[in-house]
Amino acid sequence: MSSPGLEGSPIPPTIEWMGDHIRLIDQRRLPDELVLVEVHSVEKLCDLISTLAIRGAPALGAAGAMGVALASLQARDLSEVASMLKATRPTAVNLAWGVDRALAAPDPVAEAVRIAADDVAVNQAIGAHGTAVVPDDARVITHCNTGSLACVGWGTALGVIRSSHDAGRRPSVWVDETRPVLQGARLTAWELQQLGIPATLVVDSMAGSLMAAGEVDLAIVGADRIAANGDVANKIGTYSLAVLARYHEVPFYVAAPTSTIDLATASGSQVVVEERSGSEVVEVGGVRLAPEGMAAQNWAFDITPAELVTGYITEEGVSDRVL
Amino acid sequence: MSSPGLEGSPIPPTIEWMGDHIRLIDQRRLPDELVLVEVHSVEKLCDLISTLAIRGAPALGAAGAMGVALASLQARDLSEVASMLKATRPTAVNLAWGVDRALAAPDPVAEAVRIAADDVAVNQAIGAHGTAVVPDDARVITHCNTGSLACVGWGTALGVIRSSHDAGRRPSVWVDETRPVLQGARLTAWELQQLGIPATLVVDSMAGSLMAAGEVDLAIVGADRIAANGDVANKIGTYSLAVLARYHEVPFYVAAPTSTIDLATASGSQVVVEERSGSEVVEVGGVRLAPEGMAAQNWAFDITPAELVTGYITEEGVSDRVL
Repeated sequence: MSSPGLEGSPIPPTIEWMGDHIRLIDQRRLPDELVLVEVHSVEKLCDLISTLAIRGAPALGAAGAMGVALASLQARDLSEVASMLKATRPTAVNLAWGVDRALAAPDPVAEAVRIAADDVAVNQAIGAHGTAVVPDDARVITHCNTGSLACVGWGTALGVIRSSHDAGRRPSVWVDETRPVLQGARLTAWELQQLGIPATLVVDSMAGSLMAAGEVDLAIVGADRIAANGDVANKIGTYSLAVLARYHEVPFYVAAPTSTIDLATASGSQVVVEERSGSEVVEVGGVRLAPEGMAAQNWAFDITPAELVTGYITEEGVSDRVL
Repeated sequence: MSSPGLEGSPIPPTIEWMGDHIRLIDQRRLPDELVLVEVHSVEKLCDLISTLAIRGAPALGAAGAMGVALASLQARDLSEVASMLKATRPTAVNLAWGVDRALAAPDPVAEAVRIAADDVAVNQAIGAHGTAVVPDDARVITHCNTGSLACVGWGTALGVIRSSHDAGRRPSVWVDETRPVLQGARLTAWELQQLGIPATLVVDSMAGSLMAAGEVDLAIVGADRIAANGDVANKIGTYSLAVLARYHEVPFYVAAPTSTIDLATASGSQVVVEERSGSEVVEVGGVRLAPEGMAAQNWAFDITPAELVTGYITEEGVSDRVL
């Protein structure tokens, strides 16, 4: 009801306002099963956010706003609820943004619904513009998960692939598994299956060979943050992919809403790259891969300089610069 | 007794002739535990080879020869034993080579012992020559396992790092985990721990960012086969690493015995790249990573063109060409 643009989609909205409660996809259960959780309390929502049942910047923005909306219907102390929600993922900028937007609105429910709808509309505009850069029968490589599950619905880089598929361009996708957390293998692969878009999973280090073999027509990735000069902070491995694309003369596009462009960050060198626990590298699904005591370095993101980006795809169009 | 050059090594020989039987490291148990298996029958050896308890081209050459040696002491039908051994890994050229060498020798035991000793001596010569390209305090990146465990002892690319360490160069190592089979995380990490050489595990897709950050002084990899023109067939991911090294002006060395140079192969384009099961990509240690039914492409090797190779390190020296 609150997800215009997603009617009939094989992938339900990541998060949805149900009139008096929230419904969301428990992403911890993917790709094994699609579980929709009905959320009737802020406490439950906080638990789902902190355990990564829902993740992705745009999705968290909607979750924060819907959490405040839910609390407003239950006549709870909204400032206390706001603090609770923000504390679940203290570094998630969009989460706090969504909370504050709903808190400041005269009608938190209407505001939450609007945030969710806007997110889908922006992604679909990105998809529509991006279709222009996807040739017929294009073999596209992508990295991480930038699909419906990272947003309220549709997706950014994966949304471009989805839109071009719907427009009859017949794209097929090389899915980087995206070590260490494997968002490509777990989430992007699942989404493409649901959408019926031909897709093949590969280890990240096979990208160069695929390009050398002439098997890749273009690369499309998302962005966590874009600096004012066009440098792109995104999932680790994005930069290596961009260098390989340049070496093989494969076009390399970044798809993201304009809200990702951070004018306060002049260039990528000002972005502090999050270092995550080495346990993500040495363990997969509870299985230890490396010997006890082995050190691992785990940069969560990398910086791709603007000169390696062929074009930026936003809801405003496709451009070779961000400003 | 049969492993000159490895006295006092913290890593036992991968395979060793014990006078009347064979002892080998069961690599399936690494990195969790170091298990030495005493092998008194060819049947047991065949089982260990086919289940990858021992792997790596040079190690399999010694295993094949020692299998024939063992059978010769037990007065068995040697041609039948030879067929049995070769059938365990039909595409392993070195295994068949070792079997045939021992079979043709007047004394199969002496021949097997000689093959093992030669392998260590050749690797140590590679290490001694390669030390010349490793600057003091070098931060070296390597891919896959090219260490003691891939050979009878010492190693090729990892052997160069070991020799430079022993020579006081104080190298530290970035260990590519090497998806999909994770030889870097499982085996190279373990070897470097045993040797006391500082090492840090990274996901393969972090190599570019490490280079961009100025954290890599040189790359050294091994080779499965080197074509007459210098093109290198090696573990998937080697080519991507070579391109990244070139882009960042990081020297890229290939360390391998001259026996790896295949004059019958004019260039890398003549090498047929083995495609392995996609299950190696979608599963790790019995844990499924991708959704059921997801297709995966799994090229076991890639081809690095000679123009990306700074130098070849063999037992004869370091050269920018192979012939």
